[in-house]
Amino acid sequence: MDFKIRAAKQEDCKEISRMIIELAVFEKMQDQVKISTQELERDGFCSNPLFECQVAEVSEEQKSSQGYTVVGYVLYYYTYSTWMGLTVFMEDLYVMPEYRGKGIGKGLMSKVAQVGKEKQCTRLQLAVLDWNTRSLDFYIMKGARDMTASEGWHALRFDGEALDKLAAEAPKD
Amino acid sequence: MDFKIRAAKQEDCKEISRMIIELAVFEKMQDQVKISTQELERDGFCSNPLFECQVAEVSEEQKSSQGYTVVGYVLYYYTYSTWMGLTVFMEDLYVMPEYRGKGIGKGLMSKVAQVGKEKQCTRLQLAVLDWNTRSLDFYIMKGARDMTASEGWHALRFDGEALDKLAAEAPKD
Repeated sequence: MDFKIRAAKQEDCKEISRMIIELAVFEKMQDQVKISTQELERDGFCSNPLFECQVAEVSEEQKSSQGYTVVGYVLYYYTYSTWMGLTVFMEDLYVMPEYRGKGIGKGLMSKVAQVGKEKQCTRLQLAVLDWNTRSLDFYIMKGARDMTASEGWHALRFDGEALDKLAAEAPKD
Repeated sequence: MDFKIRAAKQEDCKEISRMIIELAVFEKMQDQVKISTQELERDGFCSNPLFECQVAEVSEEQKSSQGYTVVGYVLYYYTYSTWMGLTVFMEDLYVMPEYRGKGIGKGLMSKVAQVGKEKQCTRLQLAVLDWNTRSLDFYIMKGARDMTASEGWHALRFDGEALDKLAAEAPKD
């Protein structure tokens, strides 16, 4: 199957938004999606974008059963290691189910690696759910190291009331 | 003990660099620190900085046994959730051993929460090593949720040859 990987444009946000929800449904957390197409357009396509995105596109002849030609996306941004400097973080990688097993996910991820290397990033990082063994196996097969399994890194989060309380207790300037 | 939390200035980078190494020694990974004071100055204090930093400062009378008055730092940056939008990520939080237990770490972290809330962040995230139970307990006590323990999130990383190979295999434009 022929597909093209290209940088997302503002007008792709409707399709990206659709796929963000498809991915959240798969992750069994669709109730947590609060971001709209308009917010994606604002946040990713301004003078100082908060993320970058690449999409995978197929021809009209190969459109999906619901008529879509944008069939996958990868959304990423830059983080900073105090040991290594700039790093790239892959927030979402998604390919529609009927297009899997054709190298599209690999193509999207390789594109992020290439873009990151061009910016001198020495790491590409991501987070994956441990029950998502298909994805976990895919990343490991491509050479990723599981830093939680090997070094014991845990992801922690403050949100809701815990975050409000913390912020309220900040020392006065 | 009186201490002041303030936004780091470019001339603090030498002190931040010293403490980055102290933290890496504690984490038993000091051989991995490749970032110089000059790189911190360049990356954090340009027109489009890659991170933000706050430092904790004590008075001359309370300087450390080696003569330091900048005795802690927190380094953070902004990430993006496709469910929640802008989030703040705390990369490093460090207080010199002789200044612990005085609320300085809490003060630095609360400052990040406050700055994040001002930018409409709904999450403050971080990663911690599971054997670092003192830190883990501290964060949990302040209200953090362990997303690795509760939802099964694992941190994955491509670097070195695995990253080079991935980047080399990116589809041609």
